[in-house]
Amino acid sequence: MVALQFLMTSAMAADESPLREAEVANFMLGNGMEVVVIPDHRAPIVTQMIWYKVGNADEPPGKSGIAHFLEHLMFKGTKKHPSGEFSAKIAEIGGEENAFTGSDYTAYHQTVTPESLRTIMEFEADRMRHLVLTDAVIVPERDVILEERRWRVENSPEQLLEEEMQATLYQNHPYRIPTIGWMHEMEQLNREDALKFYDRYYAPNNAILVVAGDVDAGRVRRLADETFGTLPRGPDLPARVRPQEPEQNTKRIVALTDPRVTVPSFQKSWVTTSYGTAEQGEAEALDILSEILGGGTRSRIYQELVVKQAIASSGGAYFNGRSLDPSSFTVFGSPRGEAKIEEVEDAIDAEIRKIIEFGITDVELEKAKNRFVRSIIFARDSQSGMAGIYGAALATGDTAHDVEAWPLRIRAVKAAEVQAAARKYLSPDRSVAGYLLPRESATSGDKSR
Amino acid sequence: MVALQFLMTSAMAADESPLREAEVANFMLGNGMEVVVIPDHRAPIVTQMIWYKVGNADEPPGKSGIAHFLEHLMFKGTKKHPSGEFSAKIAEIGGEENAFTGSDYTAYHQTVTPESLRTIMEFEADRMRHLVLTDAVIVPERDVILEERRWRVENSPEQLLEEEMQATLYQNHPYRIPTIGWMHEMEQLNREDALKFYDRYYAPNNAILVVAGDVDAGRVRRLADETFGTLPRGPDLPARVRPQEPEQNTKRIVALTDPRVTVPSFQKSWVTTSYGTAEQGEAEALDILSEILGGGTRSRIYQELVVKQAIASSGGAYFNGRSLDPSSFTVFGSPRGEAKIEEVEDAIDAEIRKIIEFGITDVELEKAKNRFVRSIIFARDSQSGMAGIYGAALATGDTAHDVEAWPLRIRAVKAAEVQAAARKYLSPDRSVAGYLLPRESATSGDKSR
Repeated sequence: MVALQFLMTSAMAADESPLREAEVANFMLGNGMEVVVIPDHRAPIVTQMIWYKVGNADEPPGKSGIAHFLEHLMFKGTKKHPSGEFSAKIAEIGGEENAFTGSDYTAYHQTVTPESLRTIMEFEADRMRHLVLTDAVIVPERDVILEERRWRVENSPEQLLEEEMQATLYQNHPYRIPTIGWMHEMEQLNREDALKFYDRYYAPNNAILVVAGDVDAGRVRRLADETFGTLPRGPDLPARVRPQEPEQNTKRIVALTDPRVTVPSFQKSWVTTSYGTAEQGEAEALDILSEILGGGTRSRIYQELVVKQAIASSGGAYFNGRSLDPSSFTVFGSPRGEAKIEEVEDAIDAEIRKIIEFGITDVELEKAKNRFVRSIIFARDSQSGMAGIYGAALATGDTAHDVEAWPLRIRAVKAAEVQAAARKYLSPDRSVAGYLLPRESATSGDKSR
Repeated sequence: MVALQFLMTSAMAADESPLREAEVANFMLGNGMEVVVIPDHRAPIVTQMIWYKVGNADEPPGKSGIAHFLEHLMFKGTKKHPSGEFSAKIAEIGGEENAFTGSDYTAYHQTVTPESLRTIMEFEADRMRHLVLTDAVIVPERDVILEERRWRVENSPEQLLEEEMQATLYQNHPYRIPTIGWMHEMEQLNREDALKFYDRYYAPNNAILVVAGDVDAGRVRRLADETFGTLPRGPDLPARVRPQEPEQNTKRIVALTDPRVTVPSFQKSWVTTSYGTAEQGEAEALDILSEILGGGTRSRIYQELVVKQAIASSGGAYFNGRSLDPSSFTVFGSPRGEAKIEEVEDAIDAEIRKIIEFGITDVELEKAKNRFVRSIIFARDSQSGMAGIYGAALATGDTAHDVEAWPLRIRAVKAAEVQAAARKYLSPDRSVAGYLLPRESATSGDKSR
């Protein structure tokens, strides 16, 4: 059985990089803008994604939300293309577009037919340096982001808890600050803040252009030179050094009791290493650990709590190692029926202890690798998924080569490394547990009132 | 009884400002340095205190500990007065000296005989702008502060818990950062950091000179003009705007389990207003609340937990409202004998609830005011205490007039205001509880493992 498993693995490994490295082109324009081209000729569409190496962890102290605010303002028009024209153009040619802000990056993307690529590149290049940022634009848009925070966060006990868990989990690193911003700071964001942030970070030498789809590198290079390539460099930015986490010594609990909560839920997080900071293989081991412990219905937590003990309606684990600085590992679960939230927590803790003490089997390691590598491949199936993987990696300090090698690096994880990662990072003495509780519930979070 | 109490109060009030406002001189030198002179002719000594309006809450992100490091470096000598000369001089004339760093200020003080005042003013003025900051000075002194952190913090479970409680209590404000610094950031502090901080903040227009003692304002003004007055202004500094706290929605727990702990202890803190930020009367009400709830052996917590129920070996409350931005209110207790830490917590919570629900009596209000005002007066009894009260107030945005009026403002607090302050600030849903636990103890902090 094990032998067969290994055989399958080797067979899969050869195919797991769906694109040969040589096919992915990676070059630099004269003004310092990095370009990645991922040819994919399955369908006559093309995705442009532009990644700025700035996110909410790069915001000046007291200006939380400015990165996300800029994301909104980027749709407000330039002198050449007034507000709404870019989006109208994309709609007209039957394309799609979106944007998002993270702790480490801000990204904008459009999917269109290949003949429209030049048009969207010209639009995207234009708004990189020529945004019109007047109070007439800024003041009403600030109301929009405040309203967004109201419905996304203030109206959601889950999100309120999530915010304060992050603020508790990270004691020093700006990852503790919510991406959307703290309400009282968002209210004060103004034209000067937006201009400063835009002028500093929105420049070709702080951006990565990823083009995936029915196009070749030569055409992209030519178009990029004609559009983005004409923009002047921005200021040379210092290395992205943020305040780092101190050693953590305590176990922390964050509890939110709210009448809007109907089903209690539990989660527990730890600060961990990431692909940006890890010793060789550690982030890969954490990826496999999250898969074995709580990745979907085959995982230990799901099988034990939901299927076998039937004390939880949900349960799992997740790890997103794609960050410039530390990352975090989270387990979670919700009690079912008469079960108490403490039973769910105890059962999850027991699963973690089992891995720390007894490790994992080779069989489950191989199955987890198969599932995990498949998920990477599935994510690469769509153009925007593919462009997203490259963009996120490059914006957090990895290389295109690292992206290509990821499946192989996952394949190289050993059972002992997974156990070691659990032991090193999932210490009960350094965890932050969160409880979302209905008003009046008598649970562990409430006991210490 | 109540009538008599009021009579006593009025009689005391007239005497409670031990120094008439007119006697305290407050003026500005030509280079923007503020000077306060507090004549006190009871003994032939004089105290010089210099307060810089910079503390660890003003440090650049990632440079925690630089304010305290500078405090150390200020003893390292100038071109004119090499390392050790200032201290040797003070010892030679039989004086005393010290220095301290807080979140909002850094202060240096010496007590000497009046004839030596000019000498210490000259030394202090000299090191304000002419410190020698070479690597030969900086590198070994960094080892000193690292060692200081090792014995003060790393060797002390109490301090480790305290640090992580602060980091949890303040989600956004730099008050969450320890004054001594995070170890990993202290290790990186270098000459450039020290020079930048020194050049920016150590300047006459960012300092307050307080001279208390056997001296008159005229002489201090003359000496100040001749010493500090010859220094050039430093850069004009922007207003001290730090990131402020968001609304808090959760109840948090921080637990440290450590084999070095022999007796468990409990504390609970809340973010509150301060004298720097409060609505009229709120900080005064919190001062009285802390006095009634937990100020010494007459307090409710002490009487109920230590004396009556005999479940605690200690218990109390404290509030230090003297800060530029928010402050915090803390209650604490340690179990005695067979009592569990939860019993102590429950009993303290019950005392808080009683005040929130039923308020306080006029008699205990008057007694608390008497005790509190007496403590202000006692603190003013020593020259350094007096200078310290003025310096801390002026460095956090209050005026000399506010300091004079403090006892009267405490006298004006009404019972309903104390109850309102408890209700507004001491909400169980927004508290941060800390547990210091011996290894293997089974307590509430451990229950959610």
